[in-house]
Amino acid sequence: MGITDVDGFVAAGGHCGLKSSGGSDLALVATVDGRSVPSAGVFTSNRLKAAPVIVSRAHLQATGGRSAGVVLNSGNANAATGARGRADAEAMCAALAGSIGSAPEEVLVCSTGLIGIPLPADMVTAGIAELAPRLAAEGGHDAAVAIMTTDTRPKEVFVDGGGFSVGGMAKGAAMLRPDMATMLAVLTTDARTDPAELTTALRDAVAATFNTVSVDGAQSTNDTVLVLASGSGARPERDALTDALSEACASLAMQMARDAEGHTKVVHLKVVGANDDAEAMAGARAIADSQLVKCSWYGQDPYWGRLGSELGSAGIAFEPEGFSVSYGGTVVAREGVAAAHDEQAVARHMAGPELEIVCDLGLGSGTATLVTNDLTHAYVDENMGGS
Amino acid sequence: MGITDVDGFVAAGGHCGLKSSGGSDLALVATVDGRSVPSAGVFTSNRLKAAPVIVSRAHLQATGGRSAGVVLNSGNANAATGARGRADAEAMCAALAGSIGSAPEEVLVCSTGLIGIPLPADMVTAGIAELAPRLAAEGGHDAAVAIMTTDTRPKEVFVDGGGFSVGGMAKGAAMLRPDMATMLAVLTTDARTDPAELTTALRDAVAATFNTVSVDGAQSTNDTVLVLASGSGARPERDALTDALSEACASLAMQMARDAEGHTKVVHLKVVGANDDAEAMAGARAIADSQLVKCSWYGQDPYWGRLGSELGSAGIAFEPEGFSVSYGGTVVAREGVAAAHDEQAVARHMAGPELEIVCDLGLGSGTATLVTNDLTHAYVDENMGGS
Repeated sequence: MGITDVDGFVAAGGHCGLKSSGGSDLALVATVDGRSVPSAGVFTSNRLKAAPVIVSRAHLQATGGRSAGVVLNSGNANAATGARGRADAEAMCAALAGSIGSAPEEVLVCSTGLIGIPLPADMVTAGIAELAPRLAAEGGHDAAVAIMTTDTRPKEVFVDGGGFSVGGMAKGAAMLRPDMATMLAVLTTDARTDPAELTTALRDAVAATFNTVSVDGAQSTNDTVLVLASGSGARPERDALTDALSEACASLAMQMARDAEGHTKVVHLKVVGANDDAEAMAGARAIADSQLVKCSWYGQDPYWGRLGSELGSAGIAFEPEGFSVSYGGTVVAREGVAAAHDEQAVARHMAGPELEIVCDLGLGSGTATLVTNDLTHAYVDENMGGS
Repeated sequence: MGITDVDGFVAAGGHCGLKSSGGSDLALVATVDGRSVPSAGVFTSNRLKAAPVIVSRAHLQATGGRSAGVVLNSGNANAATGARGRADAEAMCAALAGSIGSAPEEVLVCSTGLIGIPLPADMVTAGIAELAPRLAAEGGHDAAVAIMTTDTRPKEVFVDGGGFSVGGMAKGAAMLRPDMATMLAVLTTDARTDPAELTTALRDAVAATFNTVSVDGAQSTNDTVLVLASGSGARPERDALTDALSEACASLAMQMARDAEGHTKVVHLKVVGANDDAEAMAGARAIADSQLVKCSWYGQDPYWGRLGSELGSAGIAFEPEGFSVSYGGTVVAREGVAAAHDEQAVARHMAGPELEIVCDLGLGSGTATLVTNDLTHAYVDENMGGS
């Protein structure tokens, strides 16, 4: 179940010609009646923002946080395409608006694919006109399929919020820094809310979920998370909207981690005992960004020295004779030196598909959790060519 | 030619048993008469400092910057080994001191290898006693061989400074962040100088050379660069000592880049037109740290969009419609969008062993240069297991 299992939304997915493989590359999402509803977005912080990011932000600002639909394409990022790129993104919005009877600025737009290649806009707008008549309450899955790039499976979610529901779809399949290959997500809800409340709830949900799977320091040119709220359901109690959006985002984020490019392991990395949460997260990111560490996970090597070295150079408070490391609950280093341990238990854990690693800095109460992946031959293969 | 082609120094290299392969794993360097001479060191900024780093720094401080020799081992980093590790490092110094007739604190020590494994100190001190009688003016090359780990060839240099000379040896063969696999270098000079002058000259030389090959944000637990000055040559003119040390370090740094773990390309990356030099270096590092970009170099893919995306998220001033990118002098993107260019010329350049990439931010006069490598299957292979 996904975006169109929420009351008030229709969707469609199909092929407009951007993917030479003939694969599905165009997705449409709209309110059933084409009327605008409260909407919110969280966008990449990259200064090289793709045209659709610039246009969607401007549209949300122009409408005071309302939209009637979203058009998404894979196969071309429409990024680093200058003024022409922005005109092309506007043309995509106008095409969907024309089909559903809304104003162009009531449509949002997302693109994913290669950077720096002008969008064949006529092909896309023709595709939108052709696909729009197929907008249907059964179209959510087709839309989720159409936004896939290196994803091996579509990512969908449905959450019952109690009187209201949240649906979602996402794409995103890079491994080491999911943020660096575009991460797109569209959420729908029938919760009765307003743009300001919806924006706050979405920001909180993204911070607690997508930003702990992807390492949010660097972001792709196109990263976008959107939510549209039809209002046909209940008005959520305090925090209930944030909770439901968080649950949906957490599921999509974990689906992304489990479908990361060329990975063999999902790594649940926890840093505890830091001076504060921010330092714990900086330490976790230093480990999650280390190519050496990621290669060693691929090799199932429980070499904790590398983790210590990354923590020691992460720019955070660190006590060389105060840190400990455990794999799957087995402590392998304590007070900064090797600890006798059950090597068979650790070897079994390292061989599994999901690793649980805890680094305790032994200083304070700061904690952070990141979900990341290993670095593999297949990852190198996927990223040798343009994608 | 290397460290013992400088007047006043002897060296030796051999096997003490740390490497189970039977390979050379112990190197000694000393002044010919065992007397202490002006010496200086630059050490890792990692907070998890290996025992030999702690001991060498303490010795230089205790002697006011004088030493009579250096003992180096490969096969064990003696890092994250606690109080015992520091005692073991002291024992190594005492062993060489006993052999050459100096005080223990007049000996410096370096180790490289796995972190977190107690050093078999008796084996090493016995090896030192056995090897010391072979200290000779012909021993520089053997010493350079003994500090190799994943290096495929020893790294040596000799520079004629005009009235004085500089010799050097180094090890260091990680690829993406040479700083993360230990980088060790020992320099000798017969320049007449004092500890303060020598320290300043060494720091300036390291900043201009090793720190633009390795990405110095994170550093290994053991990184060390040492220099000993016998004083039998001329007193260098102003800047001449820094210049000669820089030339020696630059050569060793480039030898390291060209022998990086599993690389196929050396990439000379230049960022120009930044607001200032620091922002240019931050931009260059963002690119050099990107696993996606490094994989694309391996695949000979001139995909400039990724470079733009990294620059846009590097936290520096960046104008999306102001940057340009060139490969081997051929501009492929100008004013933030694709530029028509000779694709054959770019393809030929990308296929070569040395890439020249220039990113112009078009903002100011800040520039920075980094030397880095591509990310390959062989790199993943080398780093899957403990090393």
